[in-house]
Amino acid sequence: MKIAFCCANIKAEPWLQGLAAALQDIDGGVEVSAWEPGAPPADYAVVWVPPQQFIDEQSALKAVFNIGAGVDRLLELRLPPSLRVVRMDDAGMAVQMAEYVSQALIRHFRGLDLYEARMREGDWSYIHPPRREDFPVGVMGLGVLGERVARTVAQFEFPVLGWSRSPKAIEGVRSFSGASGFDEFLAATRVLVNLLPLTPETQGIMNRGTLSRLRAGAYVINVARGAHLVEEDLLALIDEGHIAGATLDVFRTEPLPAGHPFWQHPKITITPHTSARTLRDESIAQIAGKIRALERGDAVTGVVDTARGY
Amino acid sequence: MKIAFCCANIKAEPWLQGLAAALQDIDGGVEVSAWEPGAPPADYAVVWVPPQQFIDEQSALKAVFNIGAGVDRLLELRLPPSLRVVRMDDAGMAVQMAEYVSQALIRHFRGLDLYEARMREGDWSYIHPPRREDFPVGVMGLGVLGERVARTVAQFEFPVLGWSRSPKAIEGVRSFSGASGFDEFLAATRVLVNLLPLTPETQGIMNRGTLSRLRAGAYVINVARGAHLVEEDLLALIDEGHIAGATLDVFRTEPLPAGHPFWQHPKITITPHTSARTLRDESIAQIAGKIRALERGDAVTGVVDTARGY
Repeated sequence: MKIAFCCANIKAEPWLQGLAAALQDIDGGVEVSAWEPGAPPADYAVVWVPPQQFIDEQSALKAVFNIGAGVDRLLELRLPPSLRVVRMDDAGMAVQMAEYVSQALIRHFRGLDLYEARMREGDWSYIHPPRREDFPVGVMGLGVLGERVARTVAQFEFPVLGWSRSPKAIEGVRSFSGASGFDEFLAATRVLVNLLPLTPETQGIMNRGTLSRLRAGAYVINVARGAHLVEEDLLALIDEGHIAGATLDVFRTEPLPAGHPFWQHPKITITPHTSARTLRDESIAQIAGKIRALERGDAVTGVVDTARGY
Repeated sequence: MKIAFCCANIKAEPWLQGLAAALQDIDGGVEVSAWEPGAPPADYAVVWVPPQQFIDEQSALKAVFNIGAGVDRLLELRLPPSLRVVRMDDAGMAVQMAEYVSQALIRHFRGLDLYEARMREGDWSYIHPPRREDFPVGVMGLGVLGERVARTVAQFEFPVLGWSRSPKAIEGVRSFSGASGFDEFLAATRVLVNLLPLTPETQGIMNRGTLSRLRAGAYVINVARGAHLVEEDLLALIDEGHIAGATLDVFRTEPLPAGHPFWQHPKITITPHTSARTLRDESIAQIAGKIRALERGDAVTGVVDTARGY
């Protein structure tokens, strides 16, 4: 069995060794190599933002495993309609998302940035906190990551709302779905957490029209894709006072360009696309397990509906 | 029934009204008033750091309700041996503790302070995170607050250890108890969270001897009482590099004195004793419920063993 590894900006060696070790006992043996143009056809591929040439040349693939939860960059390529695209299941990302979102939420709710600034000035004074009931948290996207985030936030006793394309029942989460439920979801939300897949339908979904329907003093946490957010609309709504601030991990252009207003904005906390990283060992184990299942003819989880986009 | 309210630094009026409303239908009626020297004897008292004179004068009390989870300040007074001291059960404090400790832990684990500093300098670079397995979190004190914190941290998939006076069984928490278990607990802990009651035995429990037994690169989160920590020992161990930093909400002297090294220390995050505040409405409901139970002759939770100190 041949496996091609074609991942931009990721050190190949530990992946090649890890995959080879995890599949060493497979029938006929395994050969894992970093893809180069003109390489012989592989049976499976592990990719992150591969070039079109990779897809065009590798026409014998039984499946492509996309590192990371979002397949939007892969689906921008021209793919053979029959190509099976498999995204990662959790693989250690859900807990990272839960902790990233929790800390951003708590930090804002408890006024910790303000405390920090005051304490550095030697000012020992108490900030009267808002009431938890006045801080409903709305999670957009209730896949593996969104559901984990919603459950975690509920455990901190915030009211939790969820919005997804199709209806979902999650204990402790008031669920809305589809276009018809979106307005009500937005109107009831104070802290908006975005964990949607990026598709043509969700592109720019956080814009002046939608963000201005959030409750006054809203807060935005974007941990999905930069293209979900119309950045200038967020900035304007913060200036106008309707939105209190934001924690953003993803951006239209990454790395964030020099001079972008987010770098120094006092009400915006940013991180360099680090909310949830793919964990190598978990991912290798998961991919190896799925390859074994496919070889046996079994179904695997995480197969992307390329028409739907996730 | 007469209820005396004697709480330092707390606005009396909403408490008086709230308690009166909650007990308005009690047999014989209720009269709730802010205590003044020479006031007639009350049946019950609601106190926070009352003066000795209050205790000396009010000799007919059936119970004293201490606002806040820690009764150490109250027990410093000379109390009649028969006086029933009742501390608050949770009353909204446990979730606040869970969120305060979670954010401090996550912020340190994920390097978020470092990210923030870098981002403000326009530096888009990734910090390789430590492994969760290398971040065992040890919670000292497994009462209502400590148990809630331990469970919350476990849900973020950190290894969790607990230490308490008597053995406790909490799912997902490796428990140690008593003097014999303390060394092993410390040696296995990287992030030390203190939620102990302050008693003569726990005074200064975090000192050079104990803190230096923590794993290298340790982190200290103190949300109990300032007197649990020997502040100069913490500073020395940070200077020496054994301890990576601390988040402190409580201090030997509060407000923290001007010029104290904690104010500006780059590795210490401080807040002004705000990790968990008593929530008025929840507390009033709880106290009223316990007064009704005591009047019926029923037992109530939260009665302090004054000899033990909590």
